[in-house]
Amino acid sequence: MGEAEVDTGRRRGRSKGDLREEAILAAAERQLASVGYESITVATLMEEAGGTRGGFYFYFRTKADAVAALVERTVSALHVSLESLSVDQPGAEPVDLIRELLVRTQAIWAEHGPVMSAAVELAPTVPAIGDRWAAARDAVTQTATRIAIQAGLPDSSASDGAAAVTALLVRMGEGAFYEATKRAAPPLSEVTATCGLIWQRCLGA
Amino acid sequence: MGEAEVDTGRRRGRSKGDLREEAILAAAERQLASVGYESITVATLMEEAGGTRGGFYFYFRTKADAVAALVERTVSALHVSLESLSVDQPGAEPVDLIRELLVRTQAIWAEHGPVMSAAVELAPTVPAIGDRWAAARDAVTQTATRIAIQAGLPDSSASDGAAAVTALLVRMGEGAFYEATKRAAPPLSEVTATCGLIWQRCLGA
Repeated sequence: MGEAEVDTGRRRGRSKGDLREEAILAAAERQLASVGYESITVATLMEEAGGTRGGFYFYFRTKADAVAALVERTVSALHVSLESLSVDQPGAEPVDLIRELLVRTQAIWAEHGPVMSAAVELAPTVPAIGDRWAAARDAVTQTATRIAIQAGLPDSSASDGAAAVTALLVRMGEGAFYEATKRAAPPLSEVTATCGLIWQRCLGA
Repeated sequence: MGEAEVDTGRRRGRSKGDLREEAILAAAERQLASVGYESITVATLMEEAGGTRGGFYFYFRTKADAVAALVERTVSALHVSLESLSVDQPGAEPVDLIRELLVRTQAIWAEHGPVMSAAVELAPTVPAIGDRWAAARDAVTQTATRIAIQAGLPDSSASDGAAAVTALLVRMGEGAFYEATKRAAPPLSEVTATCGLIWQRCLGA
């Protein structure tokens, strides 16, 4: 992801429109936490964000689009965080890189649990959200696959190859953080520790 | 699960009511595959199963209840299959037991993919289905935890204990079979192979 994309909507001197769009996303994030996706309507969003229902449609076509944009913003934050991992730096230990990846993922779940949970739940049935979520998962999987290859896993597409093993371990982490967020147990830090142990064993470290 | 429970609805000399209930479940399974949960109604089910809409309510309160019963029947089949694994038999290799557990799980996904997929998707939002699915997952996790302890993982509730590691690996398998079923790739047998490799590494075998 280039700087330009990351900067979108985050540049100095925001327009009123940027602020209004951000107010809608902020309302969506709060309402995902308080009442859940099903109970959100364009009316409830605009009541909290300020503005008319018609104003909503200047930014988004549907409620699903607004939540998809929120998911995208959230997973972009994760993406930026993971991009700065120095995966290819000489001397970086694969296991340490994975642990750092897990810690950064945990941080996003801790900060944006309701958005991440909603993404997991809605991805199968809301295409706009499913697409964003799949892209984010693929990006994490690609980063982790590079690390797994460094650790010595086969660089092949076979069932014992780095890509196949990594895809399952990334999905495992997603499910584990989701479950811990929904049940409010175990603490996310324990999920990170257990995931880290499983990764360590799989990387043969 | 006792014999009596397993036998329910499968005894010889079924009543007309048993057959009608089974026809409704069979219709639900076919319609999950053909049109999906959202498009199923009591009317579509009874049109295929034969009978009046009112007849439906003799067996189930809602569409969700009928699909929950179908999920229960399907995961019961998995449960019965896993019960016959001789987990505590002396000389049984933990890695071989896990592989057998995975192969039997794969068989259920291969035979009842639409039901299993629907269960994964609906579990977060349809309580009747979520409860059945969570119970099934817990049962598989308990069996696998006993195997992991035999393999030498710590019998503790800590983040590196058999229960924590197993819970994540079971969830990993669920997600992997789900994804492979939805995308029709990779083949389920490859998912089983990759899961088996990850389990093997985690069991230190």
